[in-house]
Amino acid sequence: MRVQVAIIGAGPSGLLLGQLLHKAGIDAVIVEQRSPDYVLGRIRAGIIEQITQDLLDEAGVGARMHKEGLVHHGIELCFKGARHRIDMTDLTGGKTVRVYGQTEITRDLMDARAAAGLKTVYEAAHVSLHDFDGHRPRVRYEKDGATHEIECDFIAGCDGYHGVSRASVPGSAIQTFERVYPFGWLGILSDTPPVSDELIYTHHERGFALCSMRSPTRSRHYVQVSLDEKVEDWSDDRFWDELRRRLDPEAAESLVTGPSIEKSIAPLRSFVAEPMRFGRLFLAGDAAHIVPPTGAKGLNLAASDVRYLSRALIEFYQDKTAAGIDHYSEKCLRRIWKAERFSWHMTSLLHHFPDNGSFGRKIQEAELDYLVGSRAASTALAENYVGLPFED
Amino acid sequence: MRVQVAIIGAGPSGLLLGQLLHKAGIDAVIVEQRSPDYVLGRIRAGIIEQITQDLLDEAGVGARMHKEGLVHHGIELCFKGARHRIDMTDLTGGKTVRVYGQTEITRDLMDARAAAGLKTVYEAAHVSLHDFDGHRPRVRYEKDGATHEIECDFIAGCDGYHGVSRASVPGSAIQTFERVYPFGWLGILSDTPPVSDELIYTHHERGFALCSMRSPTRSRHYVQVSLDEKVEDWSDDRFWDELRRRLDPEAAESLVTGPSIEKSIAPLRSFVAEPMRFGRLFLAGDAAHIVPPTGAKGLNLAASDVRYLSRALIEFYQDKTAAGIDHYSEKCLRRIWKAERFSWHMTSLLHHFPDNGSFGRKIQEAELDYLVGSRAASTALAENYVGLPFED
Repeated sequence: MRVQVAIIGAGPSGLLLGQLLHKAGIDAVIVEQRSPDYVLGRIRAGIIEQITQDLLDEAGVGARMHKEGLVHHGIELCFKGARHRIDMTDLTGGKTVRVYGQTEITRDLMDARAAAGLKTVYEAAHVSLHDFDGHRPRVRYEKDGATHEIECDFIAGCDGYHGVSRASVPGSAIQTFERVYPFGWLGILSDTPPVSDELIYTHHERGFALCSMRSPTRSRHYVQVSLDEKVEDWSDDRFWDELRRRLDPEAAESLVTGPSIEKSIAPLRSFVAEPMRFGRLFLAGDAAHIVPPTGAKGLNLAASDVRYLSRALIEFYQDKTAAGIDHYSEKCLRRIWKAERFSWHMTSLLHHFPDNGSFGRKIQEAELDYLVGSRAASTALAENYVGLPFED
Repeated sequence: MRVQVAIIGAGPSGLLLGQLLHKAGIDAVIVEQRSPDYVLGRIRAGIIEQITQDLLDEAGVGARMHKEGLVHHGIELCFKGARHRIDMTDLTGGKTVRVYGQTEITRDLMDARAAAGLKTVYEAAHVSLHDFDGHRPRVRYEKDGATHEIECDFIAGCDGYHGVSRASVPGSAIQTFERVYPFGWLGILSDTPPVSDELIYTHHERGFALCSMRSPTRSRHYVQVSLDEKVEDWSDDRFWDELRRRLDPEAAESLVTGPSIEKSIAPLRSFVAEPMRFGRLFLAGDAAHIVPPTGAKGLNLAASDVRYLSRALIEFYQDKTAAGIDHYSEKCLRRIWKAERFSWHMTSLLHHFPDNGSFGRKIQEAELDYLVGSRAASTALAENYVGLPFED
């Protein structure tokens, strides 16, 4: 097979890139190791920045998001037993975020891709990338007992943290930066109404908690747990009890519980790989960087990479200029580090850190006190939460 | 001797409190272990917030500060070899700080105290505090071979971190919070012109540096050093060379060097003791809390304690109400923790931390990048630097 761009990974990054390239008349294939059901089964983030919404609209897949997604104008910070609202819309001159699950975005993108009859290879085994340091990169994979090869101009590595794309780059060409946090998030999805219309981020001596939602009838809740906790040890009742203990009295009172649809523990990690371009291979999204979920930047950061990459490739083919490609890594990384900083900061501010000591805990409280009392500090939080403006 | 208030310590906190009480007709004595020359010989901070200036004016000792002190409208942050100005005045609606050495403030206060003929006992040995949990506290000390006792209504402990006041409180009645940083500041004072009209705070891979001043002809410079460094190993030339390496090219070029007048290494510490009132004993300033010097909050925080304490005592005698006294600790601590947070944050942001790792260093750079590029984040820094407003 011969295409212009081979996209590795059919998660939201790869699918969104595929859709944007298709709109520009660029021929691309997506190669994915897993099945469509597996990809759809992954429960991920659900807070969509305006820039991500704009990009989904540009890709022609925003209709259901606009219809079903919930517009949020603020968040609540809960500490010392009281909630404080950060009015994002007021603080950022009218900006909002939209609550719409990553699973739904993935489904919308898959449907659009199928409707346009675009090439996607699912369940491709032993995917390998070749010659991306030259002019004719190739992607090889096995399927149905046969070896297949794709010749292309460029490879887009959208296959996540554990994917083959970053792993194909020689170690000497890549620098990585990482922080692993000493705790995880135990999350459950349930068909119960949310505690509040907006997200509640809770700092509590027992640990962080987050009351989030996917719709007016489906909740997504999290509690911070230590890394040695096992999901089997957490009955639904135990989860709800623990969550309730960390909330303010009013939220605890209004918490509606019910059976979990999904329950899992996820570790928290900050990770960045530099650079994000290696000859004709580009990394995008989780393949190049991970943020802890506090602050909901993961999917939005992937969308921002895809925005830069799609524009760079379209410029290359339409305007015959490599400027976008040459600046891809640098532009992405400037934005990524700001989001990494914000996610690290929100994580550091809100969680219980076993090694923080009593001084560290008082500093967290002092920062929360300052944050909700200072318009400047609230604005800094809000402008990051809704998404910093693009600098280009 | 019988007085209304016994003040322990003749540093700027004790002297300022003494002056404010005197203006209100309250009879106070100051008891100090050291000699006047020793007190004046301590080189300390030199950035005075508006609230501290106002309080010095209220105490009638602001004249020379207004004449000789330098008004500063901004600071410069230097990182990755470039300087970025934070325009404090623009960001805070017109606020400024004033550069005027703590030594000069102490001298002005001592002169005013002497002119008013107020009682100060210098070189008081074996100072001890008694019965402050009852109605008749007493202060005992030895001088010229005799034991003296002061009977009073209240004791104000203004005798610093190592003083007797906090040490007189039973350990079970006090909670302390502390962080010791893994580095110190090597500082020199020299009769050389400052590098710039404003302070330059520098983040560099070799460590933090600060170009400060006391006057247009006297500079105060610091470089971060590890805790095992000895001041004897730092010739003036070595200091200037190290400082120059950490500055941006323009600042390095314009650095004027000269012999040091004073040279010393100070450790960096965050410390808070809670509460700040024990019956009829009040702690104020360094006796209750220490901040690392990054952010220049130490003297200003002491002034803010003295403001609360002087008002509380004046209310007690003039209006016969204990409300100010009863809320002293709580009001002070709310403000103190905000300044502790700011000082900790500025320290964390600007220094080289041996254990930070490469991720931590990138986060520092990302935060500096964000800070100078975001008006909200710049405003948050500026409003803390000039001093947060009083909440009461």
